[in-house]
Amino acid sequence: MSTPKLEAFPLGGCGEFGMNMMVLRYGEDLIVIDAGMMFPEAELLGVDVVIPDISYLVEHRDQVRALILTHGHEDHIGAVPYFLAELNVPVYGTPFTLALVEEKLDEHALLDSVKLHTVKPKDRVQVGPFEIEFIHVTHSIVNAAMLAITTPLGVVLHTGDFKIDPTPTDNELFDLHAVAEYGKRGVLALFSDSTNAERPGYTPSERAVREKIEDVFSRAEDRVYAACFSSSIHRIQLLVDLAIEHNRQIAFVGRSMIRNTEIAHRLEYLQIPDGRLLRPQDIRSNPRNRTAVVIAGSQGEPLSSLTRAAIDDHRHAVIQPGDTVLLSSRIIPGNEKAIYRMINHLFRRGANVVYEGGSGSPVHVSGHASQEELMLMLNLARPKYFIPIHGEYRQLCLHAALGKRLREVEEVFLLDSGDVLEFDAAGARKNGRVNVGRVCIDSGAVDEVVEDMIIRDRKHISQDGIVLPIIAINRHTGKVESQPEIVARGFVSADGDDGFMAQAREMILETLERSSSEERADWGLIKEKIRNDLKRFIKKQTSRQPLIFPVILEI
Amino acid sequence: MSTPKLEAFPLGGCGEFGMNMMVLRYGEDLIVIDAGMMFPEAELLGVDVVIPDISYLVEHRDQVRALILTHGHEDHIGAVPYFLAELNVPVYGTPFTLALVEEKLDEHALLDSVKLHTVKPKDRVQVGPFEIEFIHVTHSIVNAAMLAITTPLGVVLHTGDFKIDPTPTDNELFDLHAVAEYGKRGVLALFSDSTNAERPGYTPSERAVREKIEDVFSRAEDRVYAACFSSSIHRIQLLVDLAIEHNRQIAFVGRSMIRNTEIAHRLEYLQIPDGRLLRPQDIRSNPRNRTAVVIAGSQGEPLSSLTRAAIDDHRHAVIQPGDTVLLSSRIIPGNEKAIYRMINHLFRRGANVVYEGGSGSPVHVSGHASQEELMLMLNLARPKYFIPIHGEYRQLCLHAALGKRLREVEEVFLLDSGDVLEFDAAGARKNGRVNVGRVCIDSGAVDEVVEDMIIRDRKHISQDGIVLPIIAINRHTGKVESQPEIVARGFVSADGDDGFMAQAREMILETLERSSSEERADWGLIKEKIRNDLKRFIKKQTSRQPLIFPVILEI
Repeated sequence: MSTPKLEAFPLGGCGEFGMNMMVLRYGEDLIVIDAGMMFPEAELLGVDVVIPDISYLVEHRDQVRALILTHGHEDHIGAVPYFLAELNVPVYGTPFTLALVEEKLDEHALLDSVKLHTVKPKDRVQVGPFEIEFIHVTHSIVNAAMLAITTPLGVVLHTGDFKIDPTPTDNELFDLHAVAEYGKRGVLALFSDSTNAERPGYTPSERAVREKIEDVFSRAEDRVYAACFSSSIHRIQLLVDLAIEHNRQIAFVGRSMIRNTEIAHRLEYLQIPDGRLLRPQDIRSNPRNRTAVVIAGSQGEPLSSLTRAAIDDHRHAVIQPGDTVLLSSRIIPGNEKAIYRMINHLFRRGANVVYEGGSGSPVHVSGHASQEELMLMLNLARPKYFIPIHGEYRQLCLHAALGKRLREVEEVFLLDSGDVLEFDAAGARKNGRVNVGRVCIDSGAVDEVVEDMIIRDRKHISQDGIVLPIIAINRHTGKVESQPEIVARGFVSADGDDGFMAQAREMILETLERSSSEERADWGLIKEKIRNDLKRFIKKQTSRQPLIFPVILEI
Repeated sequence: MSTPKLEAFPLGGCGEFGMNMMVLRYGEDLIVIDAGMMFPEAELLGVDVVIPDISYLVEHRDQVRALILTHGHEDHIGAVPYFLAELNVPVYGTPFTLALVEEKLDEHALLDSVKLHTVKPKDRVQVGPFEIEFIHVTHSIVNAAMLAITTPLGVVLHTGDFKIDPTPTDNELFDLHAVAEYGKRGVLALFSDSTNAERPGYTPSERAVREKIEDVFSRAEDRVYAACFSSSIHRIQLLVDLAIEHNRQIAFVGRSMIRNTEIAHRLEYLQIPDGRLLRPQDIRSNPRNRTAVVIAGSQGEPLSSLTRAAIDDHRHAVIQPGDTVLLSSRIIPGNEKAIYRMINHLFRRGANVVYEGGSGSPVHVSGHASQEELMLMLNLARPKYFIPIHGEYRQLCLHAALGKRLREVEEVFLLDSGDVLEFDAAGARKNGRVNVGRVCIDSGAVDEVVEDMIIRDRKHISQDGIVLPIIAINRHTGKVESQPEIVARGFVSADGDDGFMAQAREMILETLERSSSEERADWGLIKEKIRNDLKRFIKKQTSRQPLIFPVILEI
């Protein structure tokens, strides 16, 4: 009998942005690292959330031992409730990460049935043949960890998301010593965050934004509204500190903002002196120059607090001429139009708006390592095999090029989600694929999973509209009992009997007449004939290709 | 009788990006400056082009004397064919601008019926009470002009689009002397480009990209593909020059690229030495290290040449490992996902991809003036009244703030499209509005103009799908002749008789039964009742709000 191999395969996050999930297997034991979601692209019409297809894990459910979480961002924990609903395995993570997971599980009514194990940095947990050490890293969320996983074949390092911030605002330094120690003893494989692999140099410290925000507070005469990601506890602490230094009370506005700051405050990751909190309903009555509001909605999301405040539609967050609005977050690609629309409205309210690009100075810094930090990680870990993760193909590619510069790295593997990398005594190699995919979630719908076909239909209709030819046929005689009706939506107007629709109806009648009685009995066939003839007709007349969907009504 | 007033009102381009159009009226004479289009936002599903509503001009067609064009970018000339189809007035513009317009008119079969008047910089034309001087400006397109319009009430300056490039690649300097001369004599009003009003400092010269592109050519070992906007003749000249310095033949790929370079070459704005042009069909057989390809598609447009080459689907433009691809253009907001998807594919082809943000050095510079240049324009013009144009509200706002710093500027007006600004002996003021709007064009459709309702339908369906309850009613007896049929697309699957659809059908039957025979005779009413009941039912069951569209079939 041969000794077992170690296998590693991403179910998401390699060759795509978000939806991070990595699987390690040794023999009959399998652990999963992170269960993230992806915000859907605009083409996935009406879809709220996209998560990885875990059918492979469900098929091997008897082997799945644990879910290990590196940190609490949505692209790492967003799929946890869906995952646990299928695979109720123990979950390991740091206190803040698990507190965020608890909120999610509570919403999904799963909290009572799930086993959550809180792990502190430097703790080690044993899961089957894997010994997992949590190593503190600096990132834009508190309590983030990378993992050192000791397997029978060697040590695997998984960075989660990180930057190497030499002056973090909470003074909790990256535990570089732990990484160095593993590197010294020998690392089989490093899986490392590629999000910022396109950026040369070093990502500035979180402390770098203090100067600009300080400047904003110094100049502000009336209220200060500051928007940032509601999980950015470091940034929120900075805003709280500066508000207090400038003698302002602090209000939190927005559901996620209130929830996350409550959790962080309870777990002591966020310090707010007594008596400085202002309830949202007291914002309007508090002196304007004594008020700071930390508000959700930095991405211009349609129903978020700041978007509503910008159009003067928020009960408590009222923006008046002279107020200052600071957007202290990056513009996520795809959100530009929504964000700029919100900024235009804020200007219309008479606010002084401070935002990225508008001012020239940084109001936000990234939480991900740039090229020099990625090189430093590679230097400390000195892995035999290097695998860039967390990125689209171009980012993985550029990160791979960094790894290839080091003599110590024997081989670099570029994995797409689903590719299986196997390690054994002879070395490492790609070997086969497992089933992967994206599952679209339509929150609130009957069946939460949106089928591909439904999205394809929506997309098709949204481009060219839909046309439904409707015919009533007598089920007994097979006779057509009505004039064909044509209903069109999102297509040329069907109101009135304009020539085009009349012609189309005529054409359907002809198609029916040209059909034999045998054909007419086969409604599937008749529908297909009508569809094809109508499609050709419409394409010729209008250069458009609406979704054509014939309906036959039995009477 | 009072002396006539001078009126100015934008029909587009103020408070919105693109679709630039400004009207000046003195007495019974009216001129229009620019007729631009806007690329539709993603929400305008299936719409290709958006143009300003010119119904005001059509109503006053006997007063419209001329269309004056500042330069050949789509947001200034894209609506010209639609404009001239309604209002066949003389058109004035520089040679390159009118050459681009001719191509458009040819496509719309309007070329023979239209009067185009070529104007050279420093030329003056008289149109009714307006004397218009064309002043050469530097911009990212050749042959761009600003306008000095002498009216009975004073001089109006309209900048068109500009930057103040002290070292333009074609050595044609901005005619600052002409502006200074008008400023010295006194300017009534300045209308100035606000596109880059958010940017502090000075926009770098077009020459600034030479270093980076030179570097790309020096390192390239195999083919060089360079993408840029096909109207950026300066940039194309630079690429041609560098290709020749590096001993490469040059091919142009892409319909717009070939057309524009042919025009520019014919008009001598683009110099290509004899014997250096390579036909697209010869790219594959030419030595790779002797080949440079200037290719259209820098925005990742779905059918563009570069997008097709990236997925190995272009006959001539073949990208092989070792080839270099340079994206020498900005990423237009909204196009990020498409562009990054294309870049990922280019990496998969094994190309070295050089793009904005990826490398840190500029591969593109803007063609619009930053804050210091805008201040310089204000200093030279010293207008009594200042009106920022060409920008969304935030840009107009920031540009207005610059104007307010100058003692010479008596008043700054922030206009939205449609606002009328009137000037007379007593001063200037906003006074009323004219009708404005956006007209959506669906190129190739029967009726090119897409009605709002159609777009609203598409949007609605694209989010939540469409549900059509269909009932056959006997026109004589009023009896329902069939089971209600429910057709759904882009909504929960209607296949199979799952409980939900059965319940919905049941509900419709109940609605019909509960209706009096009088109600049942009024099909409009019946449809409305069914729509409402079904809407409530579906919302309750699924939290979704598909478009519900009842159909009654007469038999």
